[in-house]
Amino acid sequence: MLTYNKQFVEGKEYEAFQTDNLPNKRMVILTCMDTRLVELLPRALNIQNGDVKMLKNAGAIIRDPFDSIMKGILVAIYELQAEEVTVIGHRDCGMSHVDTDVLTNKMIEHGIEKETLQTLEHAGIDLHDEFRGFDSVEESVQHSVTIVRNHPLLPKHIKVHGLVIDPGTGKLDVVTKG
Amino acid sequence: MLTYNKQFVEGKEYEAFQTDNLPNKRMVILTCMDTRLVELLPRALNIQNGDVKMLKNAGAIIRDPFDSIMKGILVAIYELQAEEVTVIGHRDCGMSHVDTDVLTNKMIEHGIEKETLQTLEHAGIDLHDEFRGFDSVEESVQHSVTIVRNHPLLPKHIKVHGLVIDPGTGKLDVVTKG
Repeated sequence: MLTYNKQFVEGKEYEAFQTDNLPNKRMVILTCMDTRLVELLPRALNIQNGDVKMLKNAGAIIRDPFDSIMKGILVAIYELQAEEVTVIGHRDCGMSHVDTDVLTNKMIEHGIEKETLQTLEHAGIDLHDEFRGFDSVEESVQHSVTIVRNHPLLPKHIKVHGLVIDPGTGKLDVVTKG
Repeated sequence: MLTYNKQFVEGKEYEAFQTDNLPNKRMVILTCMDTRLVELLPRALNIQNGDVKMLKNAGAIIRDPFDSIMKGILVAIYELQAEEVTVIGHRDCGMSHVDTDVLTNKMIEHGIEKETLQTLEHAGIDLHDEFRGFDSVEESVQHSVTIVRNHPLLPKHIKVHGLVIDPGTGKLDVVTKG
């Protein structure tokens, strides 16, 4: 990766991507970390370098209103002129079928001590709740959009949209328009 | 955006991006939401669709070990076969000069009531702490890497690296190798 990077810089391949840190489309997008979306999502939405602020976590899920993802949305609005927020979940998402019993068993198989899991539980950290996924991607997107729309620090004029993308074809479906 | 998407799907432009949800390079990357990195970062690191899980927040900062970003890293490891974690901060990052007094003033200018800010403060939410940035990107990357390396749920064999990218040229500098 570092060897390739040296060639990239020496060949001035970066010249095609030069822009500034303000999003031309005045939009901040939250989507999923999925491998299939890395290139497909920008292409399928016609997003070039410089167009949007892009946030990504597992499942495009916001549950905690002071998670770093939500704070990123607020920074994009107040510091970087974003005026629209778009949450984009996707079909066939890994977070739609997380079995937290299987997950904690895998942790033990990978060498995490049972005592460590117990210590966390006794410290009030419920791993089943922390890692729970969702049944319906539309409901999950709608829930995350609601957290953003109701956030006490979100200015009233900001539009918040919810979409679902197909990770095979890039097809978008609208869940809710801001 | 939706009109463009319809053309993209009908023209079967997705065919160039088809892959599955397992990261070919067995890597999960955390980087910043910056507009300048959307296309430049994958190109500068030779990352194609399907190669990595990609997480993004404001500044590539991990402070809370149960933030959705850290949980995404763990899901990528346990559910999706990732074996390396790379945190990539960048030069000229918006989070390197956040003035939280200016930020809260902007909130008031955008219509957030002073009473709301006071309510949050009295509820134990310290906005100056929540939105604080960093002075040195290298120190911030090193700090986030340390949080990941020390996480009680991280398997011992996982390598965690820290890099800094130049958002103009894509040039990578190594902060720490796992």
